[in-house]
Amino acid sequence: MKNILIIGCGLLGSSLLRKISQKKITKNILIYEKSKKNVTKIKKLKLPGIQVKKLEYAVPISDLIIFCTPMSEYKKIILRINKYLDPKQIITDVGSSKLKSAEIIKKNLIKKVSWTSSHPVAGSEVSGPEYGKANLFENKWCVLIKDKKTNLRHLKFLNSFWKKMGSKTVIMNSEKHDKIFSITSHLPHLIAYNLVKSAQDFEKKQKYDLVKYSAGGLRDFSRIAASNEIMWRDIFFDNRKNVSKAIDLFVKNLIAFKKDINLRQNKSILKKLIQTKKVRSKIIKLRQDTNKPDFGRN
Amino acid sequence: MKNILIIGCGLLGSSLLRKISQKKITKNILIYEKSKKNVTKIKKLKLPGIQVKKLEYAVPISDLIIFCTPMSEYKKIILRINKYLDPKQIITDVGSSKLKSAEIIKKNLIKKVSWTSSHPVAGSEVSGPEYGKANLFENKWCVLIKDKKTNLRHLKFLNSFWKKMGSKTVIMNSEKHDKIFSITSHLPHLIAYNLVKSAQDFEKKQKYDLVKYSAGGLRDFSRIAASNEIMWRDIFFDNRKNVSKAIDLFVKNLIAFKKDINLRQNKSILKKLIQTKKVRSKIIKLRQDTNKPDFGRN
Repeated sequence: MKNILIIGCGLLGSSLLRKISQKKITKNILIYEKSKKNVTKIKKLKLPGIQVKKLEYAVPISDLIIFCTPMSEYKKIILRINKYLDPKQIITDVGSSKLKSAEIIKKNLIKKVSWTSSHPVAGSEVSGPEYGKANLFENKWCVLIKDKKTNLRHLKFLNSFWKKMGSKTVIMNSEKHDKIFSITSHLPHLIAYNLVKSAQDFEKKQKYDLVKYSAGGLRDFSRIAASNEIMWRDIFFDNRKNVSKAIDLFVKNLIAFKKDINLRQNKSILKKLIQTKKVRSKIIKLRQDTNKPDFGRN
Repeated sequence: MKNILIIGCGLLGSSLLRKISQKKITKNILIYEKSKKNVTKIKKLKLPGIQVKKLEYAVPISDLIIFCTPMSEYKKIILRINKYLDPKQIITDVGSSKLKSAEIIKKNLIKKVSWTSSHPVAGSEVSGPEYGKANLFENKWCVLIKDKKTNLRHLKFLNSFWKKMGSKTVIMNSEKHDKIFSITSHLPHLIAYNLVKSAQDFEKKQKYDLVKYSAGGLRDFSRIAASNEIMWRDIFFDNRKNVSKAIDLFVKNLIAFKKDINLRQNKSILKKLIQTKKVRSKIIKLRQDTNKPDFGRN
C-alpha cells in the first residue's frame, strides 16, 4: 500500500494515524484537516504523516480513504471528491450510525466506486488530535458493515486492516448495527446529557450548589455528557428512528419504576435492582470494563 | 473516648472501623454484625475491633454508636436498644436519605436521647467488609444534619469526628439534604438501573447479544446499576417524594430531547449538548472526579 488518506484528524483520525505509522502499513499517510486549530496542533504534536491542503491532490493518489469527520460532513466531501475517485480505491468511515449515512452515500457517491463502512467502538469524552493514541482501538470491537451491495474484496481488506489497528472485528448489516448501538451507546449518551441538563435545571430553580455533591452518581454521567456535540447531534439525528424507540422503552420502564417506588412495591423493585447486576458481571467477564470498584479511581 | 460501637459492618462500617483504628481515637471498637457471612469475613480479614454477639451488652458501654445498616433496619434496632441508651451517648448513622429516617427515629427512639445524622458521600458499587478501606472518606463530603432539635454538642463532636475520618464536612437540614441528593445521587442511580433494565428488555426482544458492545456507553451505567439493592430500595422508598419529582423533571426533559431529535432542531439540541459540558468542567475543577479521559481506564 502506497498512500492512505485520513480525512478529518481529531481523536479517531489521529489515533489511526499514529497506529498506521507505528505498524508501517503504508508508505505515506496523507492527512486532510479542515480546522485551522487542528492543523496547528498536528504540526506542534509532530504527528506522522503529510498534511495536504487540497483534497483534489490527495484523493487520486490514495489507495485507502478513511472518513473520520462528523457524519454531517460526508455529503459535502463526497461531492467534492467524486470526480477523482477510482473503483480500485477502498473507502471507509468511522461513523457511529450507519443507515442514514448509507442513504447519503448511495445518493451522492459516484456509482462506479464502493464505500465499505466501519465503526470502531472506541472513543472518549475528549476530542481533538492531542488526545489520540496508537492503542485507542486495542481490543475494542470494530463493526464492519455488510449490506446487499458491499464489495467483498474491500470488506476483507478492511477486516484485516482493523485487526492490524488492534481491533476485534465483527460483521453485521446497517440495520442491526443501528438497532444495537441505539441501546448500548446512543441512548446512554442521550440519557447522560439529559440527566446533567436536569441537574442544571434543578440547580437554577432551587439555587442550591449541587455539583460539589456529584460524587454520589452524577459525576459518572457528566463524563459521557462532555462528549463532542457535533458528533452526537449527527448520531441522534441520523439514528432518530431507533433512538426514538429506545427513548420510549426507557420512559415506559422509568414510569414503572416510579410506580414501584410510590406504591412501595418491594418485590417488584428488588427484582429489578438485582437483575441489573447480571449485566455488570457479564460486562466485566467480557472485559468490556475494569473490575476495579469505582473504576479504580481511588 | 472508650468505646465506639459500629452497628452493621459492610463497606461503610468496615471502612470506619479501619480508619478509627488507624487514628487511635478510641480504646475499643465494638462491632455488631447480623449477617453470619460477614461475621466470618471480618474474622478472616483480621479487622481491628471486637465483634459482639448481643447489642444489649455493647450499647450501655458505648460512647458513640454509629448505625451503618440499611435504613430499613433502624426501627427494629432502635426498639431493641432503647432501654440501654443514655443521654450522654452520641448516636449517628450513615444513611443516604434523611427526612424519612428522622421521622422513624422521632417516633421510635426513646425521648431522652439524641440522634445526630451523618451522610458521608462515599460508596461504591461493591458491598461487604472485604471492600472497605481506611481512606474511603478521604476528601469526600460528609453532610451533617442540623434540624430544629439537633443536639449542638453532639453535632460539634461529629463534625470533628468526620474530619478525623478524612472527610470535608458541611451542615444542612434534612429537607435540603434530601432534595440535593435526589438529583445528584438518587436519580442517577435510578436512571442507571433503568437503562440497564431497558437494555435487558431490548436484548430479550431482539435476541441480539448487546452487552459485548457496551463499551460505547452502557458499561459506565452498569457500574452504578451494580450497587447494593437493599440500600437502594430503602433510599428510593424513603426519599420517594423528591425522587418522584426528579423523575418527572427528567422525563419532561427527555421528551423535549426526543422532539428536538425527531424535528431535527439543530440550534436547540446543540445548545443543550454544549451546556452540559460545563458541569463536567466544574466537577473536575472541584476535584469530584479524575480529569483523565475515560476515567483513566486505559
